[in-house]
Amino acid sequence: MLADDVKALVFDVFGTVVDWRSTVIQEGEALARETGVKVDWPRFADEWRRDGYIAGMERIRRGELPWMKVDRLHRRKLDELLVEHGVTGLTEAQIASFNRVWHRLLPWPDAVAGLSRLRERYTIAPLSNGDVALLTNLAKARKLPWDCILSSELFRTFKPDPRVYLGAADLLDQPPSAVMMVAAHVGDLRAARSVGLRTAFVPRPLEWGPGGHVEPSPDPSFDVVATDFVDLAAKLGV
Amino acid sequence: MLADDVKALVFDVFGTVVDWRSTVIQEGEALARETGVKVDWPRFADEWRRDGYIAGMERIRRGELPWMKVDRLHRRKLDELLVEHGVTGLTEAQIASFNRVWHRLLPWPDAVAGLSRLRERYTIAPLSNGDVALLTNLAKARKLPWDCILSSELFRTFKPDPRVYLGAADLLDQPPSAVMMVAAHVGDLRAARSVGLRTAFVPRPLEWGPGGHVEPSPDPSFDVVATDFVDLAAKLGV
Repeated sequence: MLADDVKALVFDVFGTVVDWRSTVIQEGEALARETGVKVDWPRFADEWRRDGYIAGMERIRRGELPWMKVDRLHRRKLDELLVEHGVTGLTEAQIASFNRVWHRLLPWPDAVAGLSRLRERYTIAPLSNGDVALLTNLAKARKLPWDCILSSELFRTFKPDPRVYLGAADLLDQPPSAVMMVAAHVGDLRAARSVGLRTAFVPRPLEWGPGGHVEPSPDPSFDVVATDFVDLAAKLGV
Repeated sequence: MLADDVKALVFDVFGTVVDWRSTVIQEGEALARETGVKVDWPRFADEWRRDGYIAGMERIRRGELPWMKVDRLHRRKLDELLVEHGVTGLTEAQIASFNRVWHRLLPWPDAVAGLSRLRERYTIAPLSNGDVALLTNLAKARKLPWDCILSSELFRTFKPDPRVYLGAADLLDQPPSAVMMVAAHVGDLRAARSVGLRTAFVPRPLEWGPGGHVEPSPDPSFDVVATDFVDLAAKLGV
């Protein structure tokens, strides 16, 4: 039975475990109250994510940028965005602190409860393109009950590179078929499945906000589709 | 002040966090009761540790053996030891289970309480020659409250190779001077210090049993000497 064959669950983090968009908007609004700056924070959040992190990783994967930690990738884009959005007058300490909002993103409401249940039966770990330090700080800040921290950084590449999924299974000392990738993104799951991992799709339709990008329907080949992590635990019989 | 400059503590595990010798003896005695085998378990434990793990790692470091996970290194020696100690009649399942005693070693009595206190202020992680899966299973079995799991395996070498200490600091995104190595072994601490880490010596005089090997006196250059992890937390002001 699937639930018995699987020994470890590895989780995409940004969008799947945590609600990056709401947190960035919320902290942006707090910064605006504190400093008087005026910004369209939803747009700012989406651009930071899409054009900073996602596009930055793509450039690293293509060899156009050297490998760098996520903080640096975020900071490069943040500095650009502040100019583009006409934000002036922030201190270096305020900018540096805002750049680290990604270390304290708020979990989706079901996340901690679901992970805690899943952990009773499975080894659970993030498997994110976020780096080890960021994922560790995030876990500490938001009490995410991981058994260990796995990151693409350990393989000096990014998902969906197959080395990330296979490397994670190797570090967990499990065959790929005993490891289940959990993600809100079908591309991540298809890449994991193509090298033998099991897959669980947990859609997060509000990741990009109301009216924002929504992932395509789950691929029929996914092993489990769950509405959230508590439902995932129930579907795996925990 | 030292306690403020340090951001992360990394711990040697076998001997420093857990009492491998007592656990191996205890599980050996249980196996003896179950199967009727007669073994000098203290000697067996010491040989397994010294001639299996420690000598095995040395051979890998010298290039005489390929890199392998700790389970395999332990199993090679266990198979030899069972013959040498005249143990016969164990099933493969019994041998395989005994080989995994290293995944469930008992912590020293102060370890979990001390780690829990230290974790309130610092990021804490193992930094062991044990591999990621073993350290993760050990943490899960014994509720060791690590923030993340660091292992020499991530650098495909073993302590005291400087790449392990520097690699750990890099993954934690800290300068070496903000990372403190905690160990019961002076060699480990000297190697960490030589590449810029801070050091805390926590002697475990019973690691090799009553009358067994005891580490030399602490090097005067160590930053902290503590009697156990609770004392370490107090000395760091947590």
